[in-house]
Amino acid sequence: MKDLVLLKIGGSVITDKKKAFTENRKAINRLSKEIRKGYNPRRMKLILIHGAGSFGHHMVHKNKIHKGIRNSKQLVDFAETQTVQNRFNAMVTESLQSQRIPAIPILASSTAVMHNIRLKHMCLDGVKELLKIGMVPVLYGVPAVDTKQKCSILSGDMIMSWIGKELKPDKIIHATDVDGIYTADPKRSRKAKLIKEITLEDWRKIKNGLTGSSSVDVTGGMFLKVSEMITLAKLGISSQFINASRAGNVEKALKGKKVKGTLIKA
Amino acid sequence: MKDLVLLKIGGSVITDKKKAFTENRKAINRLSKEIRKGYNPRRMKLILIHGAGSFGHHMVHKNKIHKGIRNSKQLVDFAETQTVQNRFNAMVTESLQSQRIPAIPILASSTAVMHNIRLKHMCLDGVKELLKIGMVPVLYGVPAVDTKQKCSILSGDMIMSWIGKELKPDKIIHATDVDGIYTADPKRSRKAKLIKEITLEDWRKIKNGLTGSSSVDVTGGMFLKVSEMITLAKLGISSQFINASRAGNVEKALKGKKVKGTLIKA
Repeated sequence: MKDLVLLKIGGSVITDKKKAFTENRKAINRLSKEIRKGYNPRRMKLILIHGAGSFGHHMVHKNKIHKGIRNSKQLVDFAETQTVQNRFNAMVTESLQSQRIPAIPILASSTAVMHNIRLKHMCLDGVKELLKIGMVPVLYGVPAVDTKQKCSILSGDMIMSWIGKELKPDKIIHATDVDGIYTADPKRSRKAKLIKEITLEDWRKIKNGLTGSSSVDVTGGMFLKVSEMITLAKLGISSQFINASRAGNVEKALKGKKVKGTLIKA
Repeated sequence: MKDLVLLKIGGSVITDKKKAFTENRKAINRLSKEIRKGYNPRRMKLILIHGAGSFGHHMVHKNKIHKGIRNSKQLVDFAETQTVQNRFNAMVTESLQSQRIPAIPILASSTAVMHNIRLKHMCLDGVKELLKIGMVPVLYGVPAVDTKQKCSILSGDMIMSWIGKELKPDKIIHATDVDGIYTADPKRSRKAKLIKEITLEDWRKIKNGLTGSSSVDVTGGMFLKVSEMITLAKLGISSQFINASRAGNVEKALKGKKVKGTLIKA
């Protein structure tokens, strides 16, 4: 039996988050090479997920479609935002393909239905069959139809949770632009300490505010990311947070080698 | 109740079929304007489907993925072919969006499962919800996973038949680069006569070869296109074949005005 591996690369790693619509081509190409070296098709089935970074956030900040659609102009904004994500995904998949990885674009919003900013359903039949023949499906954060507010954002993190629950992968690698989960925001505080491991018991204490100075950083969406992985830990799936901006980490993690980071223990 | 309209634009209309990877930008932009004029969101739900034209045929002719996958290189070909289709669809949807049409890309292969070159299943839940909020889903011909030969082509025509059967549209417009169905190939024979109407009874005669000189042209895939529309006619859905290369035809057809062409009568 091949192991099913889920690797998510954050948008902050592969785009310049400060400049709208700007890819980090150097990082994309480096990661494609790392994935080629770390991916062993004889032993592994691989699903990739990437964030939108500066191809999504700037646009949505302006058109506000994440808060729902109130006029017909926003319907066009919704469509435009989707097309831009497909263009960015084309850059990513082309880079992977140039490394001979059969990385095929999968557009989650073509089947996803959200309700009140939560994912209600997404059909994975195609993805399952693609994995069987050795393809590497590449999903990405997208705007999606919402049966309450017409449109909301189906983020890469939400896609990862959905696939985690539905396909029960053997390994989940969550690669961002920091080393892992910290006690405070490492970009703002010098006192921030990396947490090497979070167990379900630790999480209970953290949520109840019992850990004092060693509580996890709740800024920058990291809390939400951990929270989603805790849900998977409860289903028996461990995951690890690593830094994809550091060369070699993704390759090592795919190969099962030790990488600095945070382990969320099932 | 709004009418559901299904409009398919053939790849030969919006690309230069002789040159690989060459869009016909003039035709794309003209058709976007025609669709904007003909599409009335208060009375109509609209689904668009486009062919791949020179973005698909040349590539597939070379990599042969339509005949199934036999080696790992072809897995990468499959992925590459998909990404190229997404890039072409981005051109088409951007043109439509510039006319303020909320044309959202829908990647059929993200959910489709084929078996032995036939479409076995495709989830339309997302498409149905998108139509409800006033979006215009844009689907397109793509390579898709095949549970027998690993990969086959899910053409725009096959997508149209599937949606026809599943969503039972009120109107189907099949726009190609000829005026409709002929008694012979109009590009080769001067004697070719346009057939204004084909009923189920006519089709029975044609298939049995009883019509002599007025039998339909079976070259160039037209027979298959008609055959698919006949299947829908049996379900009570009429369709019309028109020429989208002639300016104004698509607009007129959307508005329900008389257009030269062939009617397949339910």
